[in-house]
Amino acid sequence: MSENAEARPRAVGVRDVAALAGVSRQTVSRVLNEHPDVAPETRDRVVAAMDELGYRMNNAARALGTRRTRTIGVLASDALQYGPSRSIAAIEASAREAGYWVSTAYADSGDADSVRAAIEHLRAQAVDGLVVFAPHARTLDVLKDLDTGIPTVALHTADCSAHSVDQVAGARLAVAALADAGHRRIAHLAGPADWLEAEARASGYEAELAARGLGFRMTVCGDWTARSGYEAAAEVRASGATAVFAGNDQMALGLITGLRESGVDVPADVSVVGFDDTPDAEYFWPPLTTVRQDFDELARRAVAALVGEGEAIASAPVAPVAPVLITRASVASPR
Amino acid sequence: MSENAEARPRAVGVRDVAALAGVSRQTVSRVLNEHPDVAPETRDRVVAAMDELGYRMNNAARALGTRRTRTIGVLASDALQYGPSRSIAAIEASAREAGYWVSTAYADSGDADSVRAAIEHLRAQAVDGLVVFAPHARTLDVLKDLDTGIPTVALHTADCSAHSVDQVAGARLAVAALADAGHRRIAHLAGPADWLEAEARASGYEAELAARGLGFRMTVCGDWTARSGYEAAAEVRASGATAVFAGNDQMALGLITGLRESGVDVPADVSVVGFDDTPDAEYFWPPLTTVRQDFDELARRAVAALVGEGEAIASAPVAPVAPVLITRASVASPR
Repeated sequence: MSENAEARPRAVGVRDVAALAGVSRQTVSRVLNEHPDVAPETRDRVVAAMDELGYRMNNAARALGTRRTRTIGVLASDALQYGPSRSIAAIEASAREAGYWVSTAYADSGDADSVRAAIEHLRAQAVDGLVVFAPHARTLDVLKDLDTGIPTVALHTADCSAHSVDQVAGARLAVAALADAGHRRIAHLAGPADWLEAEARASGYEAELAARGLGFRMTVCGDWTARSGYEAAAEVRASGATAVFAGNDQMALGLITGLRESGVDVPADVSVVGFDDTPDAEYFWPPLTTVRQDFDELARRAVAALVGEGEAIASAPVAPVAPVLITRASVASPR
Repeated sequence: MSENAEARPRAVGVRDVAALAGVSRQTVSRVLNEHPDVAPETRDRVVAAMDELGYRMNNAARALGTRRTRTIGVLASDALQYGPSRSIAAIEASAREAGYWVSTAYADSGDADSVRAAIEHLRAQAVDGLVVFAPHARTLDVLKDLDTGIPTVALHTADCSAHSVDQVAGARLAVAALADAGHRRIAHLAGPADWLEAEARASGYEAELAARGLGFRMTVCGDWTARSGYEAAAEVRASGATAVFAGNDQMALGLITGLRESGVDVPADVSVVGFDDTPDAEYFWPPLTTVRQDFDELARRAVAALVGEGEAIASAPVAPVAPVLITRASVASPR
């Protein structure tokens, strides 16, 4: 650590603080590390000396001493999608409330090397815990391979040991709303095939139809964007479906516009249910019936798991957050 | 730094790498710091020794030696808004291309203490440069007060020395599109009054009307959300405006739905232009005419400014990124 010392400007150090406060360097270090074994008066004297000398807390220095930075590392990906961007904000809010910083690194979730490098980057920051967005199975594989030794919570995934909104149950709610309105030909506008959440929603679609003895199946894949929903409209029309469960609200938006442009009215001719309940969905035309995911609750649980015990997260299944159907105006009975 | 050494497990250090490679610790340090004065064969020998010993690069350790972490710190805020979330992703992509990491800290942009603490947090990570989202004037004030000494670029602000999309010019494009269609009573659905970008767009609205000698003025304030646009619909109707320049696409969406619910058609009765060109705007009903901001170009410039010279950013004005009008179906001539 000292090789380059001669090249650096002289900074105020622990030694200076200790001298001014009249304590040992060990004691200063204990104050820095929030060690409980420091008398309050001693602590006050050390803090006063730091203030007087302009001693600057430095995470890099502190991390070398203790590996406690009161920072949660977030490996984020797909930040342009509603769910992940919502989660980042919610994690930050929960962490701040718990007195923790959030350091976010972004990775291309589809690329194992990118994920690996980002986790190493967070590890090098000596974060106390990790929240990893793991939309693809390979992200979970990388996590297992790396075996970081850092308490970790996976989000936006479908691993049952992760904190998650129950995607299968959410999809079943959506399909049930359509079937309850009398629809028998219900199509699914699915998210990308390599996303675990998309896969889980597709299996919920299948499960609810099977439970109701409905034989019609029709799935078209989008990529979460409104554009891909718009482009799916022709295929949906051709299938003769009278209702569509869209894997997210953006695809529902594009689908509705695509159908309307070809003279198909929603909900008079075709009913549509989305997924997420984005802030915009209430103001679509028609206002969108959709499945709400409680990202705030998800983030709260993830942060609590990381800061609560300071230990590795148990691999036992965690009860998922329950999704809720939000009923608006995009569902009607079939003609 | 050594106070707690006895409590830590023995890790592979520079000393071990130097011994195995048969070089001085100084040389290992130079390799770590990418110093140009190392012979390629020596460098290869040191890297091979690191690999053999499983030496782990540690930003914390490296930062203490050199303050170069190849990391750009991003002080983000308002990540649920389209512009900021888009910028975070674009900065990350540009930085990765330049071989830099991004470490993102979130702050409540309206709260000076929160901004100050987040910047200190990034500074403690020894970042090489800072991108600061400065939507409010007080964020810029905090930046000036702190005087971090770290190269800094402000984004999402209206300071002319910052990298920005020309907000005034964008607003004028929007108002001009409505005036060119024949509208004389053009209202403005503005963003929150304490946002610099909202203020700049409002001044562009005023400037374009003044340049055309149009006397009608009507401004209603929203908060960027679709809900606030929806709630503004009644006031817009009552004003007798035949056209509205909305400060962002979400408010335009809510406004259009609010007008339609009260029997006012867009664009037959009232024309609407938005701002941003979100990916959804093309699929609104009607597809939204709006002003596109090139966030990728903005991020590219910001990163280039930070990594290009490694020096503090000049305070001279930078030519802003030009906005572009995207013409779709939400504007028609007044009846």
